[in-house]
Amino acid sequence: MKLQLALDLIDIDGAKRFLEDVIDLVDIVEIGTPFLLLEGAKAITEIKRAYPLVTVLADTKIADAGDHEAKIAFEAGADIVTVLGAAHDATIRLAVGQAQTSGKKVLIDLIAVEKVEKRALELDGLGVDYVCVHTAFDIQASGADPLQELQLVHPVLNHAGMAVAGGVNPETLSRIASYDPEIVVVGGFITGNPHPRRAAKAIRALLEGREWGR
Amino acid sequence: MKLQLALDLIDIDGAKRFLEDVIDLVDIVEIGTPFLLLEGAKAITEIKRAYPLVTVLADTKIADAGDHEAKIAFEAGADIVTVLGAAHDATIRLAVGQAQTSGKKVLIDLIAVEKVEKRALELDGLGVDYVCVHTAFDIQASGADPLQELQLVHPVLNHAGMAVAGGVNPETLSRIASYDPEIVVVGGFITGNPHPRRAAKAIRALLEGREWGR
Repeated sequence: MKLQLALDLIDIDGAKRFLEDVIDLVDIVEIGTPFLLLEGAKAITEIKRAYPLVTVLADTKIADAGDHEAKIAFEAGADIVTVLGAAHDATIRLAVGQAQTSGKKVLIDLIAVEKVEKRALELDGLGVDYVCVHTAFDIQASGADPLQELQLVHPVLNHAGMAVAGGVNPETLSRIASYDPEIVVVGGFITGNPHPRRAAKAIRALLEGREWGR
Repeated sequence: MKLQLALDLIDIDGAKRFLEDVIDLVDIVEIGTPFLLLEGAKAITEIKRAYPLVTVLADTKIADAGDHEAKIAFEAGADIVTVLGAAHDATIRLAVGQAQTSGKKVLIDLIAVEKVEKRALELDGLGVDYVCVHTAFDIQASGADPLQELQLVHPVLNHAGMAVAGGVNPETLSRIASYDPEIVVVGGFITGNPHPRRAAKAIRALLEGREWGR
């Protein structure tokens, strides 16, 4: 399981300062959607330049113009872009094609998709690299978490790797980890923590199974 | 009917140069999603600064964090932000709340929504300002146009204004105009035209009914 750190309400300088403290604990740095909206592709370029060895995911949430938008993010330095599972198959295919041309990857975000199981099966057949169940930030306060969708999507993926996002913390992670997803996305639990490095270490320990002795 | 000019595959300097030629023919300048991805919120700020009297729409296609993302775009100078109709109601509500706080507006993009009629009715009840039927760029080559969805959505809107987007040109516009939508979005027909001002004038004439003598 890889740890993806989502950087959302932040700017480039803030992100660089924040990452100094935790970068050795992180596999993938996510340039979150609000961060991208604020700074544009420059955010991708500057984070990749500062940490060339880390995988950089641009949370573009592409809904149309799959090849054009993926190309902008890849050319800026992203290793992975995100495309909405709710988008047309044509958009998914174009983004996947662009990723293959660029030697990069596509992660599909199932946010707000109603029939996740059916859609994940279709997406798996479209050659996407990852499928991510994602509890929207805006509904997390209602107590929703990604576990139920993980249970539905996990069994239908034959090719794509599984990713999980949406309010993940040590408590939810202990349940998520038993499904051994390829990527676990953590944002606020680390970025909003008074002790970010300690929080990242706690997540890392859980990912490596140290809490339950694997 | 207002003319919204969508600027997509362009940068800030290119957009400013392009607008010089057509700005008097345009009601709303759209900072398209790829343009926003490339340049970030700075694109909104610079276009609004260059043309303070024109309405600026940021095609943010918000899918989550409705208030945060809308706030970033509004603070940068946008008058209207877009939110995906496929997003959760919670996200729509948060974006609408942010717009009301900021004295700005929300346009909902129905791109890739399956049951447009049902969803438009729900969105109308959520207090959004505009609902836009939108044929994705990625499926326009198949001959799809927004007319059919316009016919479904137009009758169910009681409060929200109607907007239409997706490959609009004089030929489709002549059919669209009979529904008298509040906003007509035109991109490639103007931006990809060897004579952009002439193209914008042709659209303008159709919007004002001069072609059929109204």
